[in-house]
Amino acid sequence: MASDLDRVLDRIDGDIDAALERLFSVLRIKSVSTDPAFAKECAACAAWHVEDLKSIGFEAMAHATPGHPIVVGHDRSTSGKSVLFYGHYDVQPTDPLNLWDHDPFEPFIETRKDGTKAIRGRGSSDDKGQVMTFVEACRAWKAVTGRLPVGITVLLEGEEETGGVNLPPFLASHADELRADVGLICDTNMWDARTPAIQTMLRGLCNDEVTIRAADRDLHSGFYGNAAANPNAVLVRILASLRDETGRVTLPGFYEGVPELPEALKADWQKLPFDEKAFLGAVGLSEPAGEKGRSVLEMVWSRPTCEITGIGGGYQGEGFKTVIPSVASAKVSFRLVFDQDPETVRAAFRAHVQKLLPPDCEASFIKHGGSRAVRFPVDAPSFAKARAALAEEWGREAFFIGGGGSIPVTGLIKEKLGMDVVLAGFALEDDRIHSPNEKYELESFRRGIRSWARILDAFSR
Amino acid sequence: MASDLDRVLDRIDGDIDAALERLFSVLRIKSVSTDPAFAKECAACAAWHVEDLKSIGFEAMAHATPGHPIVVGHDRSTSGKSVLFYGHYDVQPTDPLNLWDHDPFEPFIETRKDGTKAIRGRGSSDDKGQVMTFVEACRAWKAVTGRLPVGITVLLEGEEETGGVNLPPFLASHADELRADVGLICDTNMWDARTPAIQTMLRGLCNDEVTIRAADRDLHSGFYGNAAANPNAVLVRILASLRDETGRVTLPGFYEGVPELPEALKADWQKLPFDEKAFLGAVGLSEPAGEKGRSVLEMVWSRPTCEITGIGGGYQGEGFKTVIPSVASAKVSFRLVFDQDPETVRAAFRAHVQKLLPPDCEASFIKHGGSRAVRFPVDAPSFAKARAALAEEWGREAFFIGGGGSIPVTGLIKEKLGMDVVLAGFALEDDRIHSPNEKYELESFRRGIRSWARILDAFSR
Repeated sequence: MASDLDRVLDRIDGDIDAALERLFSVLRIKSVSTDPAFAKECAACAAWHVEDLKSIGFEAMAHATPGHPIVVGHDRSTSGKSVLFYGHYDVQPTDPLNLWDHDPFEPFIETRKDGTKAIRGRGSSDDKGQVMTFVEACRAWKAVTGRLPVGITVLLEGEEETGGVNLPPFLASHADELRADVGLICDTNMWDARTPAIQTMLRGLCNDEVTIRAADRDLHSGFYGNAAANPNAVLVRILASLRDETGRVTLPGFYEGVPELPEALKADWQKLPFDEKAFLGAVGLSEPAGEKGRSVLEMVWSRPTCEITGIGGGYQGEGFKTVIPSVASAKVSFRLVFDQDPETVRAAFRAHVQKLLPPDCEASFIKHGGSRAVRFPVDAPSFAKARAALAEEWGREAFFIGGGGSIPVTGLIKEKLGMDVVLAGFALEDDRIHSPNEKYELESFRRGIRSWARILDAFSR
Repeated sequence: MASDLDRVLDRIDGDIDAALERLFSVLRIKSVSTDPAFAKECAACAAWHVEDLKSIGFEAMAHATPGHPIVVGHDRSTSGKSVLFYGHYDVQPTDPLNLWDHDPFEPFIETRKDGTKAIRGRGSSDDKGQVMTFVEACRAWKAVTGRLPVGITVLLEGEEETGGVNLPPFLASHADELRADVGLICDTNMWDARTPAIQTMLRGLCNDEVTIRAADRDLHSGFYGNAAANPNAVLVRILASLRDETGRVTLPGFYEGVPELPEALKADWQKLPFDEKAFLGAVGLSEPAGEKGRSVLEMVWSRPTCEITGIGGGYQGEGFKTVIPSVASAKVSFRLVFDQDPETVRAAFRAHVQKLLPPDCEASFIKHGGSRAVRFPVDAPSFAKARAALAEEWGREAFFIGGGGSIPVTGLIKEKLGMDVVLAGFALEDDRIHSPNEKYELESFRRGIRSWARILDAFSR
């Protein structure tokens, strides 16, 4: 006789077209959290999830915040073990729009020559597609068995892409309602298209924005050039000095709390089937940047970094304007590891700017969020169960890996709710998240749903 | 009995309102040469000038070029001495538009509390207002005496603000038609609101644009940060290295052909009533930037400079996007003095970029024009006559000064037509040319017209 799980897995495969329709509905909602122009779309996206969770039998509501709403849904019909699933319904901006091959918010299935299929659209991978793998797994369990294997709380945030400030107080004030035995997050990559992975280390981040002001108006570069402070020049000098010749970040104290990796872990990572040339070659590059003398995997997973994610000042249109601008600004993202404290790094960055600032210039700053790096105990039972369930689905051992990205909520859940988090995601390196032409493999979606169905089953035992 | 000149001056004062109406008509035309979207407005502006010159009795036409038209008008009814007047009808872009207090292309007269009046609007000073001082002087001479004191050719370009490439071949192919005894240009400043000036030295320029390309798509700064080349970081390192700690430009050979000033000239300039603190304080600054240990006047008039006039890369909108962009670019303007060659400087800049470029990044360049610095013989008769005429009008000695700006045509006229050029303008330091809220003093306009009427009279003697 087929087990409940077998019937659930069959149901998932049979319902895949309807699941895609539901995913497309939510992909059409332009929930760009970083741009206030899309606030209504963010609210609409939260409302969509509330209705969808209710349709499965969850008690769900959208909690208002000073920013975008936070969706919480509970299904506690099953006593015993409980999980908290976190995802986010907001997406990155779509600029530069001209580099998209299609409307980012008109999702469709692309069939390639080799027969593989991809879901195309902003958020298809990050994070709407990934979120729906979990929701669809719940839907299938309820449809087949009338219940869920474990008690489940779903928490969907709308400000993940903005380093939003509203989730931490919400977690604190709703700690009792949200707390469960273990956290689950689906916002990460597989090792490759055939090999699942659980991230057990994540970098933290400290995002900051600096604006340099000099003259009180734009100046003619002929009449003032060589005499007036040029904020573009001040800014590039400050930013260029953030790393030294070897690629090390120069901020005083930056590497405090950043140990060298244990030799054993280094050796483990060296055994991973990772090809630096192929990793860089896939995006048109060939030379590891960053710190000299370290491997790419080490740099991305376990070393902190400083990246200028945006810079702008003066005339950027076609042609030329002989102007010394009054203002220039840049956005800088530090990725953090081990015990680096984001606010200490922010303070060091700002002090560095002030130190290099000419006396008649001013610097102002905008804080764009920060989080500490996190590491989870890979020998805890939840990790072993999830790892085994993934191996069942994909027919391959799941890797425990590091990761260069930051999922600030992971640290928050650990800190505010005292829970470990299993980070299992089905995105691929080439999904172009945060870039034009984002996609999610149809197989990531289908087998992601099946993976969660198995993990929930494993957790119930 | 009143002299012809007296009657012309009276006529100018009596006709000032009509002259302003004519100026407003041309200020309303959005002749932004640097943006192809305004090509029709540039053509319309050229046509306006043709009709206006014809209405005074000039033979005039707009010559088509691969870019914007060049207007040429002749009135050779007077034999003997001849002049070539050069001006430009194109204007700078108006961005950032939100910093304007009014529509840049709806000119009006602003009356201040102290009763002084300013003409407000893009181009009111640079260069439409200045051009019309000369045209109105011609109109007054014709109206009063039926003739001009000297033979006059008017040459109006539409690509001055873009470092346009079409004027040099036009000057070469129309050299015989354009050649005169002396050139006149009205595109410069007075010493101050009460003191006229003739610029006898002008810096040259070399404008260039560099674009750095790294990965073939935008990358997630978490997944690639510290491993992938970041074009923003490459660009700021290159740009920051263009000057050393003392403010000297680092390009090899940059200062070849740049002598120290003769002690006598230095002494002359030190005697000028120039207040560094006031000059910088007027725009909200206090510290001379550029080369340490040199005076502001020396740096602006006689030293070369390198200014970053525009820079852009990555996400510049509200909020934050954790992206490593694929592309970043900057516009750089070198101002040149004495014998510096713009193309040698351009080659040195591009070589410098290539030298600092990581092996998996690419740099491409756009040339935005270049010109050599020029100096004129201040003891030639035309300069003495113009100086005396200006002193008559303004009741003060006119200074022979240097200037930080570049008027490439000045060098071209010298080179291609073998003529000296008297640069007399009535703009003021605070006219905000190239900036929001550009203005031109009504007194600059009225007495500018009167000044040209006097200069033409002086040249006829």
